Amino acid sequence: MSILVVGSVAFDTIATPSGRVKDILGGAATYFALAASYFTQVRMVAVVGDDFTPEHEAVLKNRGVDTRGIERTAGKTFRWGGQYLDNLNEAKTDFTELNVFEKFQPRIPREYSDSHFLFLANIHPTLQKAVRLEMDGVRLTGGDTMNYWINGTPKELAETLKLVNVLLINDVETKMLAAEENLLRAANKVLAMGPQALVVKHGEYGATIFFREGAFGIGSHPFRAPALPIDEVKDPTGAGDSFAGGFMGYIASQGEINREVLKRALFYGGVMGSFAVELFGTERLQNLSREEIDARFQVFRELTHLG
Amino acid sequence: MSILVVGSVAFDTIATPSGRVKDILGGAATYFALAASYFTQVRMVAVVGDDFTPEHEAVLKNRGVDTRGIERTAGKTFRWGGQYLDNLNEAKTDFTELNVFEKFQPRIPREYSDSHFLFLANIHPTLQKAVRLEMDGVRLTGGDTMNYWINGTPKELAETLKLVNVLLINDVETKMLAAEENLLRAANKVLAMGPQALVVKHGEYGATIFFREGAFGIGSHPFRAPALPIDEVKDPTGAGDSFAGGFMGYIASQGEINREVLKRALFYGGVMGSFAVELFGTERLQNLSREEIDARFQVFRELTHLG
Repeated sequence: MSILVVGSVAFDTIATPSGRVKDILGGAATYFALAASYFTQVRMVAVVGDDFTPEHEAVLKNRGVDTRGIERTAGKTFRWGGQYLDNLNEAKTDFTELNVFEKFQPRIPREYSDSHFLFLANIHPTLQKAVRLEMDGVRLTGGDTMNYWINGTPKELAETLKLVNVLLINDVETKMLAAEENLLRAANKVLAMGPQALVVKHGEYGATIFFREGAFGIGSHPFRAPALPIDEVKDPTGAGDSFAGGFMGYIASQGEINREVLKRALFYGGVMGSFAVELFGTERLQNLSREEIDARFQVFRELTHLG
Repeated sequence: MSILVVGSVAFDTIATPSGRVKDILGGAATYFALAASYFTQVRMVAVVGDDFTPEHEAVLKNRGVDTRGIERTAGKTFRWGGQYLDNLNEAKTDFTELNVFEKFQPRIPREYSDSHFLFLANIHPTLQKAVRLEMDGVRLTGGDTMNYWINGTPKELAETLKLVNVLLINDVETKMLAAEENLLRAANKVLAMGPQALVVKHGEYGATIFFREGAFGIGSHPFRAPALPIDEVKDPTGAGDSFAGGFMGYIASQGEINREVLKRALFYGGVMGSFAVELFGTERLQNLSREEIDARFQVFRELTHLG
């Protein structure tokens, strides 16, 4: 079934211990779309400038991503620069040039209105809410956010959270959003804000999904998926968005939403995140096969499963 | 089969967000022995002062721990004071009074010489080595160490590591010992120093066991066990030693050492660590049942296993 992602397309300038790259294709919606494209039909709504070339678009189209919702406007595409020189788990931002992204007003093409799933990547919560209300026929909405909105627009974010079924954020964001240091208590507070499920991403330690009591007709026991110990993380950029793409993409590929599907989705999220960091930018996500993905899924299983 | 632990007995003064306690029974060997006692016969070698009462000893004896190797000397028992007020993952030490522990020279009672397994808790690596050489008939030796020895006595530690089969340390210690920030590469460097297996404890994210190629006749794929999201960590003191006790205790309870046994041992380590932090000091470890332990083992399994 089809999934619509709304979020950023960016040109990233990145320095890591493995090297440096300048103005490579990135952005949350890009990583999400590429990762999800191995599971299901993906549609994108984003905005780019006149520096976004057919070669950039081809990266998405080659993976079958529907790019009709990528709006071109005069000006430059969103640019981000950052480095992970001291700590591969946390980016130090060098610069952020919003450019055409500053006035982003998501416009959903009519052809997208029958999308079955929706992912609201990290943009202003008011825009997330508007998209969600317009797409009121979707079966399930996933969403992301960040410290900037948690601290800067808490009321708007609270409105959006009521409309999101599954929120995907990291440990620090979870604790910040809940104003609570204990992860389990923080997760329960976040679930009380609206989402039926909360996926907390732990970086190199994997991710945990917490459920609101009775959500999806299942019990409230959490479930945890690992991350793969990797011997060289070339570039962590986009790992979280790739995780979300694998997670949501797998769910969209299944007939129903139940505990087992959500558990496997968490594993597939970890799998796609583990591929993303192996090369700079989206390179690794451009040329995978479903066989490679399923082989790594088995590695994740063997990493954690007793006989 | 029997297991001998050599390490510290202490009286701890602890402050956490849940409360404060003064001079309660603790120490690495104590936590280890109590946790392991649910799986196998445990023998202890340690030193205490004349403030160590029959009531203190009864805590161990009630769990069937053989305390004949606990040496009494004139003076005060080792005392440690610390707090976890800002961060439950890391203790801030308020004071350390070595007292009788300063001149600790482990003496192994003759009755212990037939022990099948050995755990060298965190003491001076030269003492660890001496004990290990004396106990040269054991089937498997586990060991712990810390930043103090990694930085202060690297040569002595290197000698000890050659004699340890399974080293159990945390992420920070692993990276420090290997002088390498990437966990997988760091683990491989540590394995090259001697141990056949390395257990890296990730605190609230569980633990990973890494194997030297061909060790125990098994492949080198790592295995990861979770930790349980807990809604109130009352006191993290001793979690790592309780983990080691569950891990080594389970191994000692099994007929053979193979990959499946080591995987389950990692789960039991996490289980015992999760119990330890629920109450202050050793309180939770004093009155468990094997049924409670196995029930939590199942919770850990359900937390991570796909259907």
